[in-house]
Amino acid sequence: MLIDDKTAAGLLEKHDKIVIFCHAKPDGDTVGSAFALLRALELLGKTARIECADPLLCGKLADIFAPYEPKSFTPEFLVAVDVADEKLLEGIHKPYGGEIGLCIDHHKSNTFFAKYTLLDIEAAAAAQIVFRVVGLLGITGDKPAADAAYTGISTDTACFRHANTTPEALCAAAQMMRWGADTYRINKLMYATKSRAQIAAEAFLLGSLEYDLDGRYAQIFLPLSIYKDYGVTEDELDGVSAIPRMVRGVLAGVTIREKEDGEFRVSMRTEDPLDAAGICAAFGGGGHKNAAGCTMQGGPSRIKELLMAEVRKAVLI
Amino acid sequence: MLIDDKTAAGLLEKHDKIVIFCHAKPDGDTVGSAFALLRALELLGKTARIECADPLLCGKLADIFAPYEPKSFTPEFLVAVDVADEKLLEGIHKPYGGEIGLCIDHHKSNTFFAKYTLLDIEAAAAAQIVFRVVGLLGITGDKPAADAAYTGISTDTACFRHANTTPEALCAAAQMMRWGADTYRINKLMYATKSRAQIAAEAFLLGSLEYDLDGRYAQIFLPLSIYKDYGVTEDELDGVSAIPRMVRGVLAGVTIREKEDGEFRVSMRTEDPLDAAGICAAFGGGGHKNAAGCTMQGGPSRIKELLMAEVRKAVLI
Repeated sequence: MLIDDKTAAGLLEKHDKIVIFCHAKPDGDTVGSAFALLRALELLGKTARIECADPLLCGKLADIFAPYEPKSFTPEFLVAVDVADEKLLEGIHKPYGGEIGLCIDHHKSNTFFAKYTLLDIEAAAAAQIVFRVVGLLGITGDKPAADAAYTGISTDTACFRHANTTPEALCAAAQMMRWGADTYRINKLMYATKSRAQIAAEAFLLGSLEYDLDGRYAQIFLPLSIYKDYGVTEDELDGVSAIPRMVRGVLAGVTIREKEDGEFRVSMRTEDPLDAAGICAAFGGGGHKNAAGCTMQGGPSRIKELLMAEVRKAVLI
Repeated sequence: MLIDDKTAAGLLEKHDKIVIFCHAKPDGDTVGSAFALLRALELLGKTARIECADPLLCGKLADIFAPYEPKSFTPEFLVAVDVADEKLLEGIHKPYGGEIGLCIDHHKSNTFFAKYTLLDIEAAAAAQIVFRVVGLLGITGDKPAADAAYTGISTDTACFRHANTTPEALCAAAQMMRWGADTYRINKLMYATKSRAQIAAEAFLLGSLEYDLDGRYAQIFLPLSIYKDYGVTEDELDGVSAIPRMVRGVLAGVTIREKEDGEFRVSMRTEDPLDAAGICAAFGGGGHKNAAGCTMQGGPSRIKELLMAEVRKAVLI
């Protein structure tokens, strides 16, 4: 059942021994939402902990949040934050009976797997909704809750640069700052800190950018060997998908990642009017209009030919 | 004389034929402030234009703003925006009698060269103050004014990432979005668009990063030849000064630029407790605690030795 902020706050108020679930492969929004809510529940004297199918604090999140030791207790109420689909829990809620009592989310694709769902698809981040609920729980001016919520909102908007940014998201961030959120530190760790290995790998990738179609097509290729050669993780090179489309004049920016099984994962970012989802659909993939993906065979040159043929068709180059 | 927002709005209301001055080497804040104010004055039926000692719309600003044709008229009132010191006008106000009637600024270092100064050193950008004044002039919901003001505020905060970001800056940005500011487009042009030449030069620079002091010192060197070799402007490589300190563990990030006269311009960014201004002062330079500069002789290796000696002294490495 769909509920509003106030009803969600009421549900949390009347329960104790609460487990908060993040989605698998946790990002700053699910983790920030969870820590903001955990903090609020603890301030109310409740017992709570966070669980996730994958390690909670990796990479940048391990820099931002202090190490986390979950409390031991038998849960009586299960909450999911930023979780659109039960599958993203990977079954870790099953040992507790499996019924998610409350899901707080902002994904249009939410499957309403929880008994009660607080869904706001206008919210830029789940943390923006959680922060409203934290306020309704009577918490105010709390720095740890604000830091956590800000991490979520900054993650999902790329610090207010993505198209999902709204005036409400900016106002929520302002309120988090008033509560004491250290936005400078969080953004510095999130966007302005890289490992030496990451810098070296990015130098290689920037240098290997290939252009075609008079500069309207740009492509980078990540061979499987890059992770070993440079000592970087896949996560650390997540952001490189944005590079090819960054180049002035590029309509289709493509990143090709070689996979262990010999296939290639293609990520395409496009400028209007080019429809990335349509092009990727031609190869069995999909996604959004300006960011989509597919899996292909044959190697970077062959993939480039195939993709460029679709791009040519689409923009009549 | 120091005045408040309302008095500044009153001054503008009672004048016509207004020239708005930007500071030399214009950035997004002075230009955004000027266009926001110009738009408001024109909506009020006034005659106004913008002037600057240097070309107004270069690089990213030429992408963001439409080409600008100043109107011809004999000015009766002179306004300066984001101008801390009369020197930054480089004398272009002299032909009109030289008295700046109103300066709207946010720099602590403002020299009060204008007859009336609206100074708010808490404001993250001059555009934040100008936007308040635009509102007091009775303008509301105007997209061009909001786009211009947002450009200013995003420039000076690096899209809310710098330490000067305040809740008020975020709230002002929210209001600009409500007026219709296309924040996605502006930020994309400002932060996520690079020329092919810029990408290639950055690949070279990232690859040439040198580390020392167990990874606590990092340095890049821009030889004079880089501009010709890669076909990039100095402006396009402005941002690279941030790269060395980005590396995890680096306390002192140094960028050395070879100059035409055979000297070297050093830019140092530091992490606490390292005092960049103190170190640069040892070589006749200065700046802020975490970002400072100086001019040195001798070449990158010699400069590195000299700077590292100071870093060692400062942090007792």
